[in-house]
Amino acid sequence: MTERNIYLEDIPLDEARRRLEMALREAGKWEPLAGETLPLTEALGRITAEPLWAKVSSPHYHSAAMDGYAVQAKDTLNATETRPVRLKIGGRAHPVNTGAPLPPDTNAVIMIEDVQHPVPDEIEIRAAVAPWQHIRLMGEDMVATELVLPANHKIRPVDLGAAAGCGHHMIRVRRKPRVILIPTGSELIPVTQTPQPGQIIEYNSLVLCGQIAEVGGIGHVMDIIPDERDQIRAALQDAVKERPDLILILSGSSAGSRDFTAAVVRDLGSLLVHGVAVRPGHPVIIGIVDGIPVIGVPGYPVSAALTGEIFIQPLLAHWLGSGSDPRLRVDATITRKMTSPTGDDDFVRVMLAQVGDRLLASPLSRGAGVITSLVRADGLAHIPRFSEGVDIGQTIEVILYRPMELIQNTVLAMGSHDPMLDLLAQFLTTRYPTERLVSSNVGSLGGVVALRRKEAHLAGIHLLDTRTGEYNLSYVQQHLRDAPLQLVTFAHREQGFMVAPGNPQQIRTFDDLLRVRYVNRQKGAGTRILLDYELQKRGLLPEQIAGYDHEEYTHLAVAAAVASGMADCGLGVRSAALALELDFIPVGWERYDLVIPAEHLAHVQHLLDILRDPEFRRALGQQPGYDTRQTGEIQYKK
Amino acid sequence: MTERNIYLEDIPLDEARRRLEMALREAGKWEPLAGETLPLTEALGRITAEPLWAKVSSPHYHSAAMDGYAVQAKDTLNATETRPVRLKIGGRAHPVNTGAPLPPDTNAVIMIEDVQHPVPDEIEIRAAVAPWQHIRLMGEDMVATELVLPANHKIRPVDLGAAAGCGHHMIRVRRKPRVILIPTGSELIPVTQTPQPGQIIEYNSLVLCGQIAEVGGIGHVMDIIPDERDQIRAALQDAVKERPDLILILSGSSAGSRDFTAAVVRDLGSLLVHGVAVRPGHPVIIGIVDGIPVIGVPGYPVSAALTGEIFIQPLLAHWLGSGSDPRLRVDATITRKMTSPTGDDDFVRVMLAQVGDRLLASPLSRGAGVITSLVRADGLAHIPRFSEGVDIGQTIEVILYRPMELIQNTVLAMGSHDPMLDLLAQFLTTRYPTERLVSSNVGSLGGVVALRRKEAHLAGIHLLDTRTGEYNLSYVQQHLRDAPLQLVTFAHREQGFMVAPGNPQQIRTFDDLLRVRYVNRQKGAGTRILLDYELQKRGLLPEQIAGYDHEEYTHLAVAAAVASGMADCGLGVRSAALALELDFIPVGWERYDLVIPAEHLAHVQHLLDILRDPEFRRALGQQPGYDTRQTGEIQYKK
Repeated sequence: MTERNIYLEDIPLDEARRRLEMALREAGKWEPLAGETLPLTEALGRITAEPLWAKVSSPHYHSAAMDGYAVQAKDTLNATETRPVRLKIGGRAHPVNTGAPLPPDTNAVIMIEDVQHPVPDEIEIRAAVAPWQHIRLMGEDMVATELVLPANHKIRPVDLGAAAGCGHHMIRVRRKPRVILIPTGSELIPVTQTPQPGQIIEYNSLVLCGQIAEVGGIGHVMDIIPDERDQIRAALQDAVKERPDLILILSGSSAGSRDFTAAVVRDLGSLLVHGVAVRPGHPVIIGIVDGIPVIGVPGYPVSAALTGEIFIQPLLAHWLGSGSDPRLRVDATITRKMTSPTGDDDFVRVMLAQVGDRLLASPLSRGAGVITSLVRADGLAHIPRFSEGVDIGQTIEVILYRPMELIQNTVLAMGSHDPMLDLLAQFLTTRYPTERLVSSNVGSLGGVVALRRKEAHLAGIHLLDTRTGEYNLSYVQQHLRDAPLQLVTFAHREQGFMVAPGNPQQIRTFDDLLRVRYVNRQKGAGTRILLDYELQKRGLLPEQIAGYDHEEYTHLAVAAAVASGMADCGLGVRSAALALELDFIPVGWERYDLVIPAEHLAHVQHLLDILRDPEFRRALGQQPGYDTRQTGEIQYKK
Repeated sequence: MTERNIYLEDIPLDEARRRLEMALREAGKWEPLAGETLPLTEALGRITAEPLWAKVSSPHYHSAAMDGYAVQAKDTLNATETRPVRLKIGGRAHPVNTGAPLPPDTNAVIMIEDVQHPVPDEIEIRAAVAPWQHIRLMGEDMVATELVLPANHKIRPVDLGAAAGCGHHMIRVRRKPRVILIPTGSELIPVTQTPQPGQIIEYNSLVLCGQIAEVGGIGHVMDIIPDERDQIRAALQDAVKERPDLILILSGSSAGSRDFTAAVVRDLGSLLVHGVAVRPGHPVIIGIVDGIPVIGVPGYPVSAALTGEIFIQPLLAHWLGSGSDPRLRVDATITRKMTSPTGDDDFVRVMLAQVGDRLLASPLSRGAGVITSLVRADGLAHIPRFSEGVDIGQTIEVILYRPMELIQNTVLAMGSHDPMLDLLAQFLTTRYPTERLVSSNVGSLGGVVALRRKEAHLAGIHLLDTRTGEYNLSYVQQHLRDAPLQLVTFAHREQGFMVAPGNPQQIRTFDDLLRVRYVNRQKGAGTRILLDYELQKRGLLPEQIAGYDHEEYTHLAVAAAVASGMADCGLGVRSAALALELDFIPVGWERYDLVIPAEHLAHVQHLLDILRDPEFRRALGQQPGYDTRQTGEIQYKK
């Protein structure tokens, strides 16, 4: 281990990009890449390196546009119904098929349907024809020397046809930029291996290679290098020898004791940037080694992917001459206040849904390690530098990650988490490929609040009325008093204690929680209300439960805490315990309902159809801990 | 040659699609394709064939989220600035790096920056830490068994990361549908050959293969088959033996004497549809042979491409499970009345531009043979069945062919045609890749009218005032009286007679036009006004000029008419004559100006910059017949 590298700046995004551009200009590497010549059959999706001019006209001769006879228009001048004109076939009339060249000394085509054959070798014409009728003139489509495709144009299927039609079978396109990726990290293992504790699957190279391919580059991934300065240095030297257009060093870009990227780049070339004021993705490194740009990519998956989006893809697109950013932008209303450090460009993944007349953007987890936040994201919101964040209800610009059609056909469920909502989502997408169900886990009460704010199409709730022992109805009546709505049962579910296999702590009742480490759900979660109700019945206080403040947002997260030994026990549904191979001690059944405001009934109709479909009910009923006797039933309507 | 096949129906689009679906259902070929298992490294852009569930949690152990020391939070409970707590390294405190597993019996991480080292083997803590601080909990990102990717999902770079992160290195994706294409036509030659008169370059297979690849299929093109019934029949039989998912027979789908597709399909299987009520693309054939769907694709390029879009791509997308149509739709205002037969679904290619606060859609040529109309199109408007067309100013829905950003950065020039506008467009796109210049040739007066109707950003004009012999100014003052605008010179151009090489008809002056076949420009074109002016000066009448009514819309089209021998002479610019290797007899110089309303000056600023740029002026000045002495100068401003 060498000296610790604590130098980490906060260079604004624009300035970081500017430094890279300046250095590339100096190295003579800023211009778009040279061209290569390809057959048209291989050119789809490539970028033209120069304008394409028509080599021959299209059509390259005057041709018949119809099957029929080519004639001189003036020969037909006096033809009428009563005094038809007769022309000899092979003499003044020539049979032609569509596309055939026009015979000399003719200037019109009469459709085969419009002539009579009084005798076999003559045609009879009963109306005068105009000159140029049913003729495709030479050059009608393209005239030789005309511009057909501009430079820097992404080649589409019809472009191939146009290029071929005007005499080309080869086309000059930009060379694909080549990128070498060097993954570093002693804890990393390739995707083909099964990780042991302390080992991390190296997948940033997969994501970055995908991003590189997406814009038209070629990525080549080297073997994983451990966190040893000399080995990283040697790997970078090897990569430079290959003369790629760009080198990426993955991880090791921060300022920790095992982060050598900056030092190695400084050793071998010049370090232009170490640390950019963006969130996530701060510890980005930019340097130049022997004329080749080197980008140090942070190790956290979201930071890595974002670095790909904001540095690597734009650079490759620039080299390819495809300057235009094809990603669509929409304006959306933010559903949660987002604070943002004023000095940073902040990139926030959001879910999008059209609820009533508003397009809503709900921020996803901001953790830099949570790649699922990128998978689930419908778009990326950019909160620029020097703004202090955005307030609820404010409009922000979002770069779309998915087609708008899919977003408009999205049912957004907010509320309690149930693992079987995934099953419902899967049925919906299979039956209706352009629709989807997205759920956001904010707890049952959170879901009710979301409906009140018109931020969701439905809410999943299991809220025990501690006075009556009834589920859901009283909460809906209290919190959504004026809104016409339906309360539709999703399922009855079994709740219970999730404990380590064999139940080593012998947990049987709520009284046993006093002597173990518990893991709780967040405030407003139905499962937490159930716990509170049971504690209260027994005269127990939250303070008496170790871990009462250890909050998780989903049944599966609670199960994970138990499975890892972090806690001894948590309350949740049977399917979550089964998923992580935990034991399950039932404490009772509860009714999980969907609250659907009347105004969204049409929007969620296919979802309700599936809920009442025998095939779905059978699939759900086969899940341990679920009872579908009332699934799809309307419990309440107003 | 066998009996003529005159059976051509008018089946509505929906009904044609329904018949295909029914037949495929019967043949057991309607369900999405089966899956195949691929390494993640090859799965980008493919469609998931089944949901992907997390195999291991991510992280799969509790890990440090920071470099520092792992401790038990309760050991730090009483730490303050004045009474720090000391912990022995290796005893109650364990050094950890980011990503390392949490040592047993610890539940928090203190960042390295927040501890002191009073003695080498101890750390000193000056504030209590909360449990779980700086820890990534097991399953924070994904919990084993959780749904990570749904079925029928197009795999993006981040999805690869998520799949790898939860323990997969292989993924099940839909098999690519295989399509065999059989080009037919005795007049066709492959793209690698140079066409002779009567020969047509076969490029529909290129376009269709591109469309097939675009949605994720594989096209295989057979050799070109001549229009012989037996040979087409044999080719179809060969194709069926390969058991592809779909067979396309290109051309021969109409009802002419050489159109055998329908007959051959009827021979070998069943013919479901022959003729669909769509424009363009009417003679589409749909059939089934031995359980394999066969589509007969019309030969005209635009019809072929449209058949690809409305029949072939949706079918492949359905098989791939990617039901969603990712193409964006926008509403636009139509600039020209479009009549449409009520029985037909009519598809119109349009150019789009944002002029002021309106997004305008200008219909392009509707010719089925004009592939450049697809290349130039920014979008496709669908005029549904039973509507009688659309009126000027009406709003229509347009499927976007290009990113909206590019459309919004488009400068739309309407007016007189000058071949060198292509040069200007090329400079603009090279310098500003997200901008472009699009020109629509409607003649000088047409351009002035377009400005008055607010349908263009600028108009290129060369209008001779026949009273004063001056160019442009009087027309602008008369027709755009109230609008603040600038008149900026593009160039002086040489006009003259374009004649066959060697000038066989010895054309020298306008008087010579009396004895030759002339080709004219359309009404409102500056070149036509010049002709009229010269005829009038000489006391000649239009009726005395043979071909006065033969109208073309561009200089190049006029040149093409002369080059082909269709006419002896036309008036136009020198560059057009040169392009087609014609002789050019100069008649004088004229000033070609750009009229730019003040409201669009900012929008066209980059264009004006280029006009005044020495490099562009040099390039333009080198073109024969152009003089740049006033290029970029403002002739008039108000």
